[in-house]
Amino acid sequence: MSTITDSDQLGVEAIAAPMITSPRGFAAAGLHAGIKRKRKDLGLLYCHVPAAAAAVYTTNAFQAPPLGVTREGLAASNGRMQALLVNSGNANACTGEQGWEDAREMRRACAQALGISETLVGVTSTGVIGERLPLERIVDAVPPLTASLSPQGDQDFGAAILTTDTFTKAAEARVKVDGQEVRIAGAAKGSGMVHPNMATMLAFITTDAVIEPPVLQRLLKATTDESFNMITVDGDSSTNDMVTVMASGLAGHDTLDEGHPDWGAFQSAFTDVSRRLAQMIARDGEGATKLVEVTVQGAETLEGARQAAKTVVGSSLVKTAVYGEDPNWGRLLCALGYCGTYVDPERVDLWVGEHQLVQRGMAVPNAEEAAKEALVGDMVHFLLDLHQGTAAATAWGCDLTYDYVRINASYRT
Amino acid sequence: MSTITDSDQLGVEAIAAPMITSPRGFAAAGLHAGIKRKRKDLGLLYCHVPAAAAAVYTTNAFQAPPLGVTREGLAASNGRMQALLVNSGNANACTGEQGWEDAREMRRACAQALGISETLVGVTSTGVIGERLPLERIVDAVPPLTASLSPQGDQDFGAAILTTDTFTKAAEARVKVDGQEVRIAGAAKGSGMVHPNMATMLAFITTDAVIEPPVLQRLLKATTDESFNMITVDGDSSTNDMVTVMASGLAGHDTLDEGHPDWGAFQSAFTDVSRRLAQMIARDGEGATKLVEVTVQGAETLEGARQAAKTVVGSSLVKTAVYGEDPNWGRLLCALGYCGTYVDPERVDLWVGEHQLVQRGMAVPNAEEAAKEALVGDMVHFLLDLHQGTAAATAWGCDLTYDYVRINASYRT
Repeated sequence: MSTITDSDQLGVEAIAAPMITSPRGFAAAGLHAGIKRKRKDLGLLYCHVPAAAAAVYTTNAFQAPPLGVTREGLAASNGRMQALLVNSGNANACTGEQGWEDAREMRRACAQALGISETLVGVTSTGVIGERLPLERIVDAVPPLTASLSPQGDQDFGAAILTTDTFTKAAEARVKVDGQEVRIAGAAKGSGMVHPNMATMLAFITTDAVIEPPVLQRLLKATTDESFNMITVDGDSSTNDMVTVMASGLAGHDTLDEGHPDWGAFQSAFTDVSRRLAQMIARDGEGATKLVEVTVQGAETLEGARQAAKTVVGSSLVKTAVYGEDPNWGRLLCALGYCGTYVDPERVDLWVGEHQLVQRGMAVPNAEEAAKEALVGDMVHFLLDLHQGTAAATAWGCDLTYDYVRINASYRT
Repeated sequence: MSTITDSDQLGVEAIAAPMITSPRGFAAAGLHAGIKRKRKDLGLLYCHVPAAAAAVYTTNAFQAPPLGVTREGLAASNGRMQALLVNSGNANACTGEQGWEDAREMRRACAQALGISETLVGVTSTGVIGERLPLERIVDAVPPLTASLSPQGDQDFGAAILTTDTFTKAAEARVKVDGQEVRIAGAAKGSGMVHPNMATMLAFITTDAVIEPPVLQRLLKATTDESFNMITVDGDSSTNDMVTVMASGLAGHDTLDEGHPDWGAFQSAFTDVSRRLAQMIARDGEGATKLVEVTVQGAETLEGARQAAKTVVGSSLVKTAVYGEDPNWGRLLCALGYCGTYVDPERVDLWVGEHQLVQRGMAVPNAEEAAKEALVGDMVHFLLDLHQGTAAATAWGCDLTYDYVRINASYRT
């Protein structure tokens, strides 16, 4: 029932043991700098050459200073990035001018240790809002961090970017371009404040494809709209979300753009990595026990389909029903009814797994009992068919559990 | 710190022991018809004369049939209503044509028992979605229900309309119009699916004021926008929400309209009743331990102030922080940042109770420890000043607790 595009047909190979350092040219590292008490909290992603790069940022009005500093750097370097320094445990958000200075200082320390231009270094932070970064600890940790960069540093990097995540998140796909193998890999973190239009969600994508920054930016934007922007954990869009991509260009094929004969395959592999990372973030939503996938088809417009899917998957009442393994389809229809896009109640069909619960807006008699089995297990799929048009979209979320409350009622204590 | 308008100046008297039957002409009743297992589930509100009436309805696309039937009746009777039959335990929503027939049958039975025209009877339902009404039980219970109508039936009525509510909700205010005492009273129920633009939220307002239906409709709409539409429990707007008002016209003053010299006083009393009912619904949000009040001032527009206040009070992360009594102001600013209205981060001030936590977008040093005391107790007030204009609005919600999850993960089992 997964809606992952049929990337197999395009020769996309999903990799079982993904590494963000798998694409040619990349190394990574992660260590404990002392921002958190015990766990790793400072990570570095590095490319041996200045990579073509692109980024998308949170739309939150309180966008954190490191995002602004990264944006400045990308603009000054004409879309090139060679290193990305990430800390967890402190978001450097709502920190005013001091926050900007601290983000620049992080960047300066990293550029100096690597011997590269500051504008080639991106920085980002995730964690508690409103407290000043422990800058000295970070600056002190940068030299050992850069010294430990290695192609085998992917696990340390993946661990260093986490906050309340319960597992590291990585995905990788490979595809042929001009007969050459191109690798696309990524690492990500969630897991609260996750909502459409980005959240405290960081994702880092690497590839060895040969591609120019403007093309990469368009690809990232389009792909993000159907992956990272289609997940929601709790409706809160964070101050710090960012997705970046760095392309080393070391795969040795002709430069990719929308007109290249293998563009479709590359785009499919890129989308595949983004979606799998997005799904992992949703699955690891704070307190979650189940990944919830909602597909809306038969919508009049793509925007309407996306809005409907996101609204349903984000409904607290749907989320608690999933947690309770209760096929309470009335809650899904109710959420569909306030999603803001036009829905004709008398045309709606609803399935959970293979079980149809609603036909033309009304209950399928005696369907609920059998449908319960589709709610057991760690993956639940709902399909809503509006029978109004041909647009479709899928959104991902998770159930709402006691643990969500526990985690967030005691986050800082 | 309550933001209730200074209604005292206009001679509005709040009544400590409110009764929906207090305005001249009203009687009420409630009993157990067998829709729920044990508790009262069928209520009736009655006026000895055909009252001027008005109603506002949920905007959910899956608006339940009883709302349509009530709307039809009001249109056919030129805005008059004499009786309102309410059942809890079953929402009669997503029930298709059968649902319409059942709602009309409820209405017919009630009109027949009372010996009045069907178009003078409103009907409404709240409870589980997607199951057919147990119509026979309701029809059988109508004669004993009408026989028990009494001015002392307010408690039975208040109990019969509840679902997961933990207490009955009533409010009353009195005010002088042309020197005559006018009474305004109301009863309401929550408490899940409560969100701006109505929710499984029913409110019934009575008054003995002399007022025409179109004036009453305008008043109800405007008042609802700053009371019932400013509360949120979980972001889910229900299929069944409705607010109605019935005016018996028995207070013996000159007909009220916007030009009457006592209009301001009447409007203030009406708003006072609506707000107090709305606050009670928020306070009794599913699983709630605290009423949360968020005032946004200094906004450029009223719409922006309302949107900001509702977004902040509806944030799951703010709600869990309140539950944890954690003055985690970063979460409030974060929610403000994605509310969709323009906010200049560097101008924002934030108080909790009497404690200022944020000045011009940055933390007030060492303010949090003392601020914790403002989060203890069952009422928390946040004030956000955007320093961008002169518009202000207040929204109400509640904390998000383990019990919210428990109630909604096991609602039907």
